[in-house]
Amino acid sequence: MMKIKDGIVNVTILGSTGSIGTQTLNVIRNLNSQKKMTGKEYNVVGIAAKGKDDFGKLLDQVNEFHPDKVALFDEDAPEAFRAICPEVDVVAGDDGLEELAKDDKADIIINALLGAIGLKSTICALETGHRVGFANKETLVAGGEFVMKVAKENEYQSELLPIDSEHSALFQSMMGQPKNRIKRVIITASGGTFRDKTYDEIKQMNPSLNDVLKHPNWTMGAKITVDSATMMNKALEVIEAHWLYALPLNKIATVLHRQSILHSAVEYIDGSIIGQFGEATMEKPIQFALTYPDRIFHPTKFSLIPEENDREYVLTFQKLDRYDPKYKCFDLGLSAIEKGGYMPAVMNAANEIAVNAFINGRIAYLDIPKIIEQAMIDFEKTHITKYDGHIEKVFLFDRLTRVQTESIIKMFYER
Amino acid sequence: MMKIKDGIVNVTILGSTGSIGTQTLNVIRNLNSQKKMTGKEYNVVGIAAKGKDDFGKLLDQVNEFHPDKVALFDEDAPEAFRAICPEVDVVAGDDGLEELAKDDKADIIINALLGAIGLKSTICALETGHRVGFANKETLVAGGEFVMKVAKENEYQSELLPIDSEHSALFQSMMGQPKNRIKRVIITASGGTFRDKTYDEIKQMNPSLNDVLKHPNWTMGAKITVDSATMMNKALEVIEAHWLYALPLNKIATVLHRQSILHSAVEYIDGSIIGQFGEATMEKPIQFALTYPDRIFHPTKFSLIPEENDREYVLTFQKLDRYDPKYKCFDLGLSAIEKGGYMPAVMNAANEIAVNAFINGRIAYLDIPKIIEQAMIDFEKTHITKYDGHIEKVFLFDRLTRVQTESIIKMFYER
Repeated sequence: MMKIKDGIVNVTILGSTGSIGTQTLNVIRNLNSQKKMTGKEYNVVGIAAKGKDDFGKLLDQVNEFHPDKVALFDEDAPEAFRAICPEVDVVAGDDGLEELAKDDKADIIINALLGAIGLKSTICALETGHRVGFANKETLVAGGEFVMKVAKENEYQSELLPIDSEHSALFQSMMGQPKNRIKRVIITASGGTFRDKTYDEIKQMNPSLNDVLKHPNWTMGAKITVDSATMMNKALEVIEAHWLYALPLNKIATVLHRQSILHSAVEYIDGSIIGQFGEATMEKPIQFALTYPDRIFHPTKFSLIPEENDREYVLTFQKLDRYDPKYKCFDLGLSAIEKGGYMPAVMNAANEIAVNAFINGRIAYLDIPKIIEQAMIDFEKTHITKYDGHIEKVFLFDRLTRVQTESIIKMFYER
Repeated sequence: MMKIKDGIVNVTILGSTGSIGTQTLNVIRNLNSQKKMTGKEYNVVGIAAKGKDDFGKLLDQVNEFHPDKVALFDEDAPEAFRAICPEVDVVAGDDGLEELAKDDKADIIINALLGAIGLKSTICALETGHRVGFANKETLVAGGEFVMKVAKENEYQSELLPIDSEHSALFQSMMGQPKNRIKRVIITASGGTFRDKTYDEIKQMNPSLNDVLKHPNWTMGAKITVDSATMMNKALEVIEAHWLYALPLNKIATVLHRQSILHSAVEYIDGSIIGQFGEATMEKPIQFALTYPDRIFHPTKFSLIPEENDREYVLTFQKLDRYDPKYKCFDLGLSAIEKGGYMPAVMNAANEIAVNAFINGRIAYLDIPKIIEQAMIDFEKTHITKYDGHIEKVFLFDRLTRVQTESIIKMFYER
């Protein structure tokens, strides 16, 4: 188990130019401004990004944080980046990413990659004994059974820490508590952009990407904001909680909590519920993954106590209906983990392709669940259901599903 | 530190016939029904009560739980009880109570006594190395500095566990967390019976005891229900948290939370707030004090998730105004701990006498703060302010204040 000691803490950020990556760098700025108090300096040793679109941000990051290595996985990117930034070691493609994830120099890997490539990185980092703070969904949705085996059974007892707000809240609500006495965990859901619309209203409006991006509580990347609107996000979180906390599905509940102030809670068998509240910002769970088990000052506006006499904070909790047709993706996601085996990997790959097609304006919002359902029906017909411990098959079915789903979109759905 | 082992756990209940005492026995019934699962049997070795009014309940308790010893502290009670219940060892008065609190046979003492006598019992029990679950307010309000010294510095590292819902919630929200990173604790207050009335409305209605006992959230003893209405209860809890968790007063906040579902919370410097929710029943914190650090099944109706689609749970949080005239007692209680020394003991004794006078119909509801304020003004004039480590002086000022306050009530306030 990685122990954060005084002195230098070396951090590698996979996906440094995305929403989670840039927030991780904000957190590192905050932590390093308190160096005198904490006795720790967070040092960025490696960053990874996709390709040429990231060059602007990447250059700024190299100039500010001076990482030893930069990994770029688009084919033509490494050569071009070397040309404009000769002072840094640039590594290329999947091999370069693997080199970064395994780099002995790092203590903590923040994995904010999208897709199966992130799952590979998590496995490499855990095998090397790093602490991994992960936002990558595939790590547990597609690779959960395998990844948890690696995390628990390798010689380092590597730590796998969640950096989304719900799982971080669950983690924080289990610290020091008897984990064998959990009655169930309660994952909160904001309800997404269309929580106040009915299925028929959504159908009528035929939402554009811009409509979806008006999320009431959070500012996040486009993919996750769409997943939040379709409620697929919550199904993915249920699957992640299932693996991360070794909980059967009947011990994982969800609740509609519009204010996103309670980030999730754990109910114990004595009826006591421990929950974690806070501002709706990803920087807090990111920082906690970096400082755990310690807590370091982070600027905060929200508290449970209003400052004015006439103000009232209101937190509401409503049942989240799995069978509400507007949340069809939620039902599909839960069905995938109920079916088990490789089905969650297939469901997740189909969702990612479908959501990207929606983001790129190729399909309608309500086509998303139809495309995922089709992929799941097709995979079920193959009768390949039981997971047999081969992580290669996860990558295989991920890739196959992506290709097939892409074809189906091209042939039937593209407008 | 007392470790709960498998096998027999011996419990002594001081104040067994009161509200907390009878609920403790309910909890013990619940725990013993799960003996097979827990491997533990909770065995009542001693009970203590006041006098003849308790005989009915006391006899039932002896017949069901077969304690080895019964302590009775009213002068004429022991002899009379021996006559009707010869099979149990009856000990008498303050000495008997002390004998019970020090009894080697007990592992846990539940201290639900009212008044200074409870403080003495806590000290005896801690000095003997027992775990003490306490509801007795004097333990920390009057004796905080001395008691915490005894708990921490004796050879046993005795455990002092709170069994009121707010401090139990704080305790549960600190388990496994870095206690040196607490920004502040947030104690929730229901607002009491008259939370929706203004000071003028309360003045006009001139409430009777029956009016006060209509508490919206909790069923508790009369004294504590009155303290909840006057908000003195919350001031006492601030003082208790100050000692129990070694927190300066500026790190202890209060918030008006009408639903009594969040029992209290701890805010850490990273902006994360950990809180504990549950049903508003004292049985839960009592059970936790008995089973800590484990948690055992306790029947629970409440969860954060409504069962019906159209139902919504609403939790509200409002600022609690110290200077609202209807909560004058709250301000007086906070002033007492701000002044420090023996003032909290004086304030608490005056409050107890005043509230009892109100319960007995001798004074009006709004006389309560006037009487407390008078006692505090008088004590301040003595210039005896600094606590000098003599617990005997706490008992002395407690007794003096009671006598003087009683005289003032007789002479000036009695109707």
